[in-house]
Amino acid sequence: MDKTKVGIIGLGTVGSGVARLLLDFGDRTGRHAGRTLWLEKAVVRDLAKARDCDLPASVLTDDIEEVLNHPEIEVVAQLIGGLEPARTIMLKLLESGKDVVTANKALLAQHGPELFDRARELGRSIAFEASVAGGIPIIANIGQCLSANQIESLFGILNGTSNFILSKMHEDGAAYADVLAEAQRLGYAEADPTMDVDGADAAQKLAILAHLAFGARVDWQDIPRTGIDKLDVADVRYAQEMGYKIKLLAVAQLVGDGLELHVSPTLVKAGTPLAEVGGPFNAIRVVGDAVGPLLFYGAGAGQMPTASAVVADLIDTAVGRTKITFKTLELWSNRQARVTANDYAQAKGRFYLRANVVDHPGVLAQIATALGRQQVSIASVLQHEAEEGSQVLPLVIMTHETTEGAAAKACEEIAAFKSVQGDLVRMWVRG
Amino acid sequence: MDKTKVGIIGLGTVGSGVARLLLDFGDRTGRHAGRTLWLEKAVVRDLAKARDCDLPASVLTDDIEEVLNHPEIEVVAQLIGGLEPARTIMLKLLESGKDVVTANKALLAQHGPELFDRARELGRSIAFEASVAGGIPIIANIGQCLSANQIESLFGILNGTSNFILSKMHEDGAAYADVLAEAQRLGYAEADPTMDVDGADAAQKLAILAHLAFGARVDWQDIPRTGIDKLDVADVRYAQEMGYKIKLLAVAQLVGDGLELHVSPTLVKAGTPLAEVGGPFNAIRVVGDAVGPLLFYGAGAGQMPTASAVVADLIDTAVGRTKITFKTLELWSNRQARVTANDYAQAKGRFYLRANVVDHPGVLAQIATALGRQQVSIASVLQHEAEEGSQVLPLVIMTHETTEGAAAKACEEIAAFKSVQGDLVRMWVRG
Repeated sequence: MDKTKVGIIGLGTVGSGVARLLLDFGDRTGRHAGRTLWLEKAVVRDLAKARDCDLPASVLTDDIEEVLNHPEIEVVAQLIGGLEPARTIMLKLLESGKDVVTANKALLAQHGPELFDRARELGRSIAFEASVAGGIPIIANIGQCLSANQIESLFGILNGTSNFILSKMHEDGAAYADVLAEAQRLGYAEADPTMDVDGADAAQKLAILAHLAFGARVDWQDIPRTGIDKLDVADVRYAQEMGYKIKLLAVAQLVGDGLELHVSPTLVKAGTPLAEVGGPFNAIRVVGDAVGPLLFYGAGAGQMPTASAVVADLIDTAVGRTKITFKTLELWSNRQARVTANDYAQAKGRFYLRANVVDHPGVLAQIATALGRQQVSIASVLQHEAEEGSQVLPLVIMTHETTEGAAAKACEEIAAFKSVQGDLVRMWVRG
Repeated sequence: MDKTKVGIIGLGTVGSGVARLLLDFGDRTGRHAGRTLWLEKAVVRDLAKARDCDLPASVLTDDIEEVLNHPEIEVVAQLIGGLEPARTIMLKLLESGKDVVTANKALLAQHGPELFDRARELGRSIAFEASVAGGIPIIANIGQCLSANQIESLFGILNGTSNFILSKMHEDGAAYADVLAEAQRLGYAEADPTMDVDGADAAQKLAILAHLAFGARVDWQDIPRTGIDKLDVADVRYAQEMGYKIKLLAVAQLVGDGLELHVSPTLVKAGTPLAEVGGPFNAIRVVGDAVGPLLFYGAGAGQMPTASAVVADLIDTAVGRTKITFKTLELWSNRQARVTANDYAQAKGRFYLRANVVDHPGVLAQIATALGRQQVSIASVLQHEAEEGSQVLPLVIMTHETTEGAAAKACEEIAAFKSVQGDLVRMWVRG
């Protein structure tokens, strides 16, 4: 049987998983690729470090030159996170004639154009299934399987940490900080969870998907985003009362000639597929103009799910499919962007608003008037009695369709009222 | 831009949809395939028949030789249903040097080995994404995206007609015959719905998926199957009362060295993703040993969803991906089957049983004893009072895990009791 020699850069969690699949299950790649994927070299920083995979001594090295200069290694899984030295290593790999497979979303979201242009110049390919939604093959599905469609919208739960925390807040009624601590204990959140909970991770993934699905070229940092790190469990309760669940949604949808693009905590109607995605799972709802709505659900992170995506890419690259896809899709090429992001303030939708108001007559009228000045009309109001001894009570308003800008402006105005304490809470509502 | 000339055989519902996508949206194939897919000829039986797509006169023909002998047509979408003349036409297309794309599941389930062997001999390819689950790209996902995995199980809602009927029976509490009539009126069921509601259609699709996912070679007619055509709405009600929904599930799962394989109405725990797939939609839950559980959801039939899958295959074939996949997967080759179906009677699970019993003392004891003789133990019993004036009441029993064979034997024995009227109802229970 033919053999394709493979290198791995970085034996962290995902790298060890990839090594295990290649070493322990060679029969599979034989069966699915018609050839053996042979792990020739795995490059690590520290040879002495303990790892959760057993590698032959001849495979392990701390010298990346052993991969770069190896004439028979054709494909390399580049599994180092962060921007540098990941970027430099990626360029070196391409320049050494290797096709590259990567799981590094931050790198692609930041340096996609440079890396893809360089790969094209050199006649090499980059595969990146594992960079978005872990084990869910969303890159292949959008890039290949839905080729007959104009994608109309894409709503994704793309951050497993946030989804785990939100699910727990819904199930247990526990506060954000407590659930985060539990998530860290269980390994669903990093010691520094910032990128996960502030929406940055989801925005990076959304930038990649928006490019793939719509040809948009956006800097992920320009995508309007709100995380879940300021979420009050009280709003989880009110959302539930009204028949919704709060999800961190990454949204890209065609509106007119442009793209609505943002990452936001969103009230999603309970019972709909996205609302019911629990725990650390991811899901993406894609609507194509021919196929209609599709939903893809699965593990968005974790060692073996991510390794599953990396090895699928290694196989695709070894058999020659990646080369074709890479060429036909022309991702991050110098072609003009097919679509640009709309002004976020013009994005239309319904909103959930919550103000803490001092309990005296006329407050609701005052707030309703402020909303009316921005043409924001009220669909429903939820107002509980003030707690024993408190003069402050939460006023929850669900709006009819309006624009993000009008809702924001009205909230700003309302927050300045003497009878309103603190900032207003404002979230999107879907379904 | 390069051009790949395409032929279509059969301009029925799906064929017209494919023609529309090719004629009206050429820019897409340009963007996703790096080339134009040019509809050169479309073969129909009756030139005079009205169709829902506008074709240039030079494209339409009733002479298949115009495709077979056309030196520049490279790929043909063969969209005729049934076994003959579909089989003969498929062979002729391959022999004329055309790569073929098809949506014909019955043809593949019946003649897969012959057709794939012939294609291999001739150096041609067959793509068949549209043959299972319509617009859901399940063939590509299992055949390519999950290549790093050993698939462990696959549970599919593969027949949209049955799912529409079941959903309606749950929602409206209406009887099977009434809902079927409604489905026919709405176009969700054929005038002759036999193949859809008796499980045959799902069994054909399951045979294809079981081959792709597990390397099993099964005649679809050997797959044990029960349809929904005998389903009593009373059982829908009882299932609901116990927190379940009835779904027609196609099951393929590794158990020991073999494959559990059947199509059965099944009580699925309400609130789980498969249970909540409503209307005419399809869904497939796949568990891979690396990736864990994945769910794919979407339209399993219909003109444009199916056309979406056909055109994706045309693009894959035009750019060269299909050729690679066809070669590496070696489907329906002379290789030995990797796995064979287990004896259905040995399949383990829990069962829902319902007997109509004459209301007198000792019946339950008699039935419980009969179950006990087959080592079937009872998990719960639901017994309502007899209706006014009736001596017969329904006795619903949920068993603990047992085997299909033991449950069947016990039911046979119980049905012979004098105090039991008619056959027993027996369904699988999952989740």
